[in-house]
Amino acid sequence: MEYPDLTFDERGLITAVVQQFDTLEVLMVAWMDAEALRRTAESGRTWFWSRSRQAYWNKGETSGHMQIVKEIRYDCDGDTLLLLVDQVGVACHTGERSCFYRAMYPVPGDGAAKTNESTDGIPLS
Amino acid sequence: MEYPDLTFDERGLITAVVQQFDTLEVLMVAWMDAEALRRTAESGRTWFWSRSRQAYWNKGETSGHMQIVKEIRYDCDGDTLLLLVDQVGVACHTGERSCFYRAMYPVPGDGAAKTNESTDGIPLS
Repeated sequence: MEYPDLTFDERGLITAVVQQFDTLEVLMVAWMDAEALRRTAESGRTWFWSRSRQAYWNKGETSGHMQIVKEIRYDCDGDTLLLLVDQVGVACHTGERSCFYRAMYPVPGDGAAKTNESTDGIPLS
Repeated sequence: MEYPDLTFDERGLITAVVQQFDTLEVLMVAWMDAEALRRTAESGRTWFWSRSRQAYWNKGETSGHMQIVKEIRYDCDGDTLLLLVDQVGVACHTGERSCFYRAMYPVPGDGAAKTNESTDGIPLS
């Protein structure tokens, strides 16, 4: 399988941003190689490449928190994918719905900071 | 300036996903190093590191299509940033509002494919 419009990096990887298809919340970012992308397109479930474990992983395979793929988009450079999915359960291993549950800017305590109970911000230092 | 909760890769870089703060459209993905992040937090405008040009770039500096930073979030691993911005004009150098204006899945022509005038999809091959 070839992806003529995609550019994989020197490690053979491409960044994959995963977004909930209806609320448009960004859930997580992970990596794919061509084989992970092929498995994702064939199964309609997300597969990624773990750089730390050097292994494929099927999101939700053990937790049940799978991602049902609705659409795969790619950017102008062809070096990033945007997957619109329906996330079953939660995306983050911490139990949060999204991996992006912390904010660092605006600096918490700043008058401009948003109130957000899930924000565990740190000051810029 | 230090970012104790962030992990920069072996190149000193971190992935930055840029999302329109109100519509939640994902606009683009680029790279930052600690200095680009510092400039972004200080100026409230996005700065990135160009891997191809090996130089900093201030989004919109020449085009006027700047990004006004509303919030910077970071993920559970601390290796990806999510910037919520107000995009002036368009994010993509092609003139599209978002860099993710093309879809590759579902395969165009498939009954499940969404109608989207801006979609210039390619079949999986």
